[in-house]
Amino acid sequence: MKFNKNLENIENYEAGKPIELIVREFGIKEKDVIKLASNENPMGTSKNVQKTIKKNANKAHLYPDDSMFELKKALAKKYEVDLNNIIIGSGSDQIIEFAVHAKMDENSAILTSGITFSMYEIYAKHLGAKIYKTTSKEHNLEEFKEIYEAHKDEIDIIFLCIPNNPLGECLDKEDVYKFIKEVDADTLVVVDGAYNEFAKFKDVKKGIDVRNLIFEFNNVLYLGTFSKLYGLGGMRVGYGIANENITSNLLKLRAPFNVTTISLEAAKEALKDKKYIEKTLKNNLKEMKRYEKFAKKHNIKIIDSYTNFITFIFKDKNSTEIYDNMLKKGIILRDLKGYGINAIRITIGLPYQNKLVLKELKNTLQIIDKMQ
Amino acid sequence: MKFNKNLENIENYEAGKPIELIVREFGIKEKDVIKLASNENPMGTSKNVQKTIKKNANKAHLYPDDSMFELKKALAKKYEVDLNNIIIGSGSDQIIEFAVHAKMDENSAILTSGITFSMYEIYAKHLGAKIYKTTSKEHNLEEFKEIYEAHKDEIDIIFLCIPNNPLGECLDKEDVYKFIKEVDADTLVVVDGAYNEFAKFKDVKKGIDVRNLIFEFNNVLYLGTFSKLYGLGGMRVGYGIANENITSNLLKLRAPFNVTTISLEAAKEALKDKKYIEKTLKNNLKEMKRYEKFAKKHNIKIIDSYTNFITFIFKDKNSTEIYDNMLKKGIILRDLKGYGINAIRITIGLPYQNKLVLKELKNTLQIIDKMQ
Repeated sequence: MKFNKNLENIENYEAGKPIELIVREFGIKEKDVIKLASNENPMGTSKNVQKTIKKNANKAHLYPDDSMFELKKALAKKYEVDLNNIIIGSGSDQIIEFAVHAKMDENSAILTSGITFSMYEIYAKHLGAKIYKTTSKEHNLEEFKEIYEAHKDEIDIIFLCIPNNPLGECLDKEDVYKFIKEVDADTLVVVDGAYNEFAKFKDVKKGIDVRNLIFEFNNVLYLGTFSKLYGLGGMRVGYGIANENITSNLLKLRAPFNVTTISLEAAKEALKDKKYIEKTLKNNLKEMKRYEKFAKKHNIKIIDSYTNFITFIFKDKNSTEIYDNMLKKGIILRDLKGYGINAIRITIGLPYQNKLVLKELKNTLQIIDKMQ
Repeated sequence: MKFNKNLENIENYEAGKPIELIVREFGIKEKDVIKLASNENPMGTSKNVQKTIKKNANKAHLYPDDSMFELKKALAKKYEVDLNNIIIGSGSDQIIEFAVHAKMDENSAILTSGITFSMYEIYAKHLGAKIYKTTSKEHNLEEFKEIYEAHKDEIDIIFLCIPNNPLGECLDKEDVYKFIKEVDADTLVVVDGAYNEFAKFKDVKKGIDVRNLIFEFNNVLYLGTFSKLYGLGGMRVGYGIANENITSNLLKLRAPFNVTTISLEAAKEALKDKKYIEKTLKNNLKEMKRYEKFAKKHNIKIIDSYTNFITFIFKDKNSTEIYDNMLKKGIILRDLKGYGINAIRITIGLPYQNKLVLKELKNTLQIIDKMQ
């Protein structure tokens, strides 16, 4: 049976290895595995959210409220926007998918940073669309501008990942605004703020004012997620905020019931859990320093991170070898070799996890040194 | 901002009204609302599944195992197929979406029954593809064959809904097999078995032998769901079973983490819950008779149903008027006017619900009679 030719060029997203896999493959006990590979919230699921999930366990047979009224209302309040400015997806990934399918076809192109969240590219490839990337790995708005000017007719969507996953760097919001001003009104600019709360906490200049952004620019789609700060990676809830012309068109591509009944309840509860959010942000900023110190001491290059992870770039050691060695010890990190960079991305964990990870990393680096 | 022209023709799927909406709109208490609109399992969430959800509430922050190994293993065992024959989706809807996007483009067409599950058409419209439907509302394989022969070059996917939602009729499996034998090897035949367990329980001739089906035909994709018999409508888990050439191509369009961590656990547990399944099937068959008797007595036309719902077709009364009247009483049914038929679809509920629904329906019919 034949399928669309576009499919030939699609490679699937490589997810961080799940704990179950390490248990199965290496026979390590579940409780001994440390997973700092997928930027999940190391605080675990908030106690309040756990309560909500338990309370709603008897509603699993009921389809979700497809209008998502309650969650939209909560998000509208948080961002001071209208319900019609919001679209909710199965993770913010799905909003990316809607945007690509709503705006593009095989003759159009996206523009992204040299190294960034790979789903932008994967969804564009679903359509057989073209991918323009800056030669600069990190976001470089000058280069974005140059490429955009040269290929304006083709480029339908520009993706800005603020801060950038998997590198960690972050543009200043003022620079972002200045850039968007020079983009044509018919080009969609996706501002992916999956980690923006972490950036804002570290440096207020990096925090996107979403309301302001979407009211100033009719061609901007802001993305947010419950998977990181809110600790709901497993529940698959993300959202897009934009003017109604954008959301209403994207909504046409949303299948009914794209978020589970229990996920909607969990997300509503997570928004309210100020203590959990504060603890998460504080732990992250404090523990990040531990990694920065380690990198400095061991002469590992890092990019200043505005996220809940840090990326260690290696010169004379192979990131895949380091990754594999750590995996055998039951520590799951993310090798970025597939992104075209010899680096390891580590989610900032709890103090005890970070200590153990860095201890084992030190050992691993020493072993590799001896073998070289 | 401009969007793809295909979007102009897309209407969203109209979901059964959620209970929350009736509470909000009519001020009826949640516990007093009867929803028999979405073919959810009236037994509620199985107790075992509830336990599983509660047990896994503390894993909401963890991304799901993207290989879905455990659930695939359980499904492979149930259907006696290989893990590679299975693809899991956010509801079987999502597998329909993958199939349409993998196989079709704006120049191709689908072929469906005159009245059937609307998502086939909606996904095809996302691509701007053409829709062929039989003039016969119910599945009529002779007419399917005629249309297929006349438009073979265009038709990429044939959808058979066995039994059919929202009408309830069901083809014999032998007739289905005979039909598929005459379809070209490059045309995908989707056999949607969302309600097939109900059909098989009523009449073994209607039950699809999935293993046999996919090993005999390389161009068939079978769809199953956890939303109906297994009582997990809110958890969004469905699956496709086909030969590996089909599943591997569809998998290319699957976004990572398309099913939640807790949904995967709930689905695994639901498969094991034999008692709940048996109770559901028995209640359904028994209570269906209550509706059949009512229809006969009140001269309402019905289609012999092989599902967990029954469709009442009205001659001299407006289905929308009946639907609206019932809604005001806190009883949510499904008006099929939008499907082009003057009918109401009612999910078979628990005995007390069915009694109340039929009592109120009787009253409603009398009131309308008097007004006419």
